[in-house]
Formats: sequence, C-alpha cells, structure tokens
Amino acid sequence: MSRWEPGARRRLEKAAFELFAEQGFAATTVPEITARAGLSTRTFHRYFADKREVVFGGEDVPAEAAQMLADAAPDDEPLDLIMTSLRTFAETRFEGRRDELRMRREIVSSDPGLRERDLQKRETVGKVVHDALIARGVSATQAALLAETSVTLLYVSVQEWLARDDETPLADIIADALNTLRSTLA
Amino acid sequence: MSRWEPGARRRLEKAAFELFAEQGFAATTVPEITARAGLSTRTFHRYFADKREVVFGGEDVPAEAAQMLADAAPDDEPLDLIMTSLRTFAETRFEGRRDELRMRREIVSSDPGLRERDLQKRETVGKVVHDALIARGVSATQAALLAETSVTLLYVSVQEWLARDDETPLADIIADALNTLRSTLA
Repeated sequence: MSRWEPGARRRLEKAAFELFAEQGFAATTVPEITARAGLSTRTFHRYFADKREVVFGGEDVPAEAAQMLADAAPDDEPLDLIMTSLRTFAETRFEGRRDELRMRREIVSSDPGLRERDLQKRETVGKVVHDALIARGVSATQAALLAETSVTLLYVSVQEWLARDDETPLADIIADALNTLRSTLA
Repeated sequence: MSRWEPGARRRLEKAAFELFAEQGFAATTVPEITARAGLSTRTFHRYFADKREVVFGGEDVPAEAAQMLADAAPDDEPLDLIMTSLRTFAETRFEGRRDELRMRREIVSSDPGLRERDLQKRETVGKVVHDALIARGVSATQAALLAETSVTLLYVSVQEWLARDDETPLADIIADALNTLRSTLA
C-alpha cells in the first residue's frame, strides 16, 4: 500500500459513517473502519486521532469563523457582518452536503459523548463570534447578545434545512429566520 | 446527632462552597464538607447524591420553568409569556443571591465537568421553553428561535448582573437586553 492514498480521508469518512449508521457509533472500532475503507490503521491516524474525530474532524469551524470575521470590512455594521458571514458559511460549508449532515446529526444524537462535544463546539463558535465583535469595538452586552443570536440563527436554520425536502438554500432559510426573530421580538 | 438537622442543607452548601473556593472543587471531598458543616456523611446524602450536586443541586430549574410556562394565561403573546416568566424567575431565583451566584460561577468555570453540566442544563432549559411554546401552538421555527433567545437573554443578563456592583435589578437588565437585541437586529 502506498503512503499516499488519493481520497483516503473521504474513503475513511464514508466507511465510518456507514458503520456508525449500521451498528452504532459506540460499537464501531477503528480497525473495522479501515477494513471497510481498504486502508491501514496507520493511514487512519494520519487523518484522525480517534473515531470521534471522524464525526467532527477535519473542520476547524471556530478557526474558520474567526478568520472570516477578521477579514471583513472594518466599517461593516455588526449585523451585516454576521449575516454576510452566515451566508458564506452556509454556501461553502453546508450546501451540497445535506444527506451527509443528516447522517451526522443522527450519529451525534445517538451518543452522549458526541452530543456533549457538539454543545461545546457550539459554545466555542459563540465565543469566537463574541471576541471578534469585541475586537471591532462592539459593546460587551451587544456583542454577547449578537454572538449568541448568530449561533441560534445558524443552528435553528440548519435544523429546518435538514428537515425539509425542498431545495430552499440554507442561506435563504437563515435570512427568513432573522425576519421571524425580528417579528417575534417586536 | 438527631435525624433532623435544622438548616442542614444550607450548612452543607455553605461549607462546600467555602471549601471549593479555598482548595478547589476537584480537591474537596464529601467528608471534608460534612466535617466543616458539623454534620454526618449520612445527612449529606439525604440532600445530595455527590459534591457536584451541591453546585447545581436542589434546584430543578427546567421543571420550575415548565410549570411557570404551563401556568401562564393561554392567550398571552409568546414574547409576553417569555418576558413575564423571565421577570418572575429573576425575582424569585436570582435577586438577593448575587454573592452566592458569583462564587458558584467561579467554581463552575474552574472545572470542566461542571462547565459541561452547566451547558447541558442550559440546553435542557431551552428545550423546556421550546416544548411549552409548541404546546401553545407557536410554529416550530418561531418556538425554536424564541426558546434559544430567552435562554440567551437570561444568560447574558445574569453575566452582566454578576459583573455589576450597582443595585440594578436583574429583571431590569433583562428588559434592557431585549431592547438592545431588538435594536441590534433592526
């Protein structure tokens, strides 16, 4: 087996997700995943520390969010900044992956350790957005409220997008969610 | 020692919080807590399953929130229902306990297991609010957004209230936070 396996990461992810769906996350071992993918355990560990990382792995969402917010024009209004970032995020990270993300959601909800990590991830994203807003001079309370609200808009919209079977883009669902929230709070 | 110790719960809580502050949560044992409180380990276990429960214990916030929402007038607007409940909650559960809650916050942030449980608790409260809104006929998206937002308003306001040294009531900080959020999203 050559050291470089083209598409190895995707093959490992596909094999892992199939096995998680068939027999559960807890019951699946790394050797089972590599056997199904036709790759070695050594190759697995070039990409993932453990099987949990396959579920969340390879995607440093907080770091990407921080970069996106740091790159934005300095005079953007805070809400515009958030909505532009959420749209970009939806288009680059979610669109076209709905089936995979549905399967991922099932796996996460089946395992307490994964649910816990999902909550922590969500909290970390909120902190990154909060710190970016503070760095732009937004007041403490406004930054805290807007950071939490941006995470809420994303998570609630992703749930709706995963539940729908039409082709409405996630970015449009997020924009609608903002309008719904505005009218709910009016 | 009599079976019934007046004020035993409060004495155990006070002793535990003092020890957590002095030597850390992880280093503190149940026998140390009971020795400081002058009570037996058996008495401790009449009130708390373990030392972690002293931090979160005795307060079934999700159940209380569910009851409060179920008792509300059936024709209240969703936002009025939420804001009335938050005000009642602030007045009955937070006001007058600021120093104790500051100490509690320090202990929770010092320990990963407690931080995790705090996140889970927050998620559970959100679910309770969500289910109560759904039961009142609020649409799925609106219920999800408003449930998350009510948790955001409470947590962000509590942080601000704990950080302040004036006597502004928490309920007023929550009402101001709603106005700040409205103008941020406008």
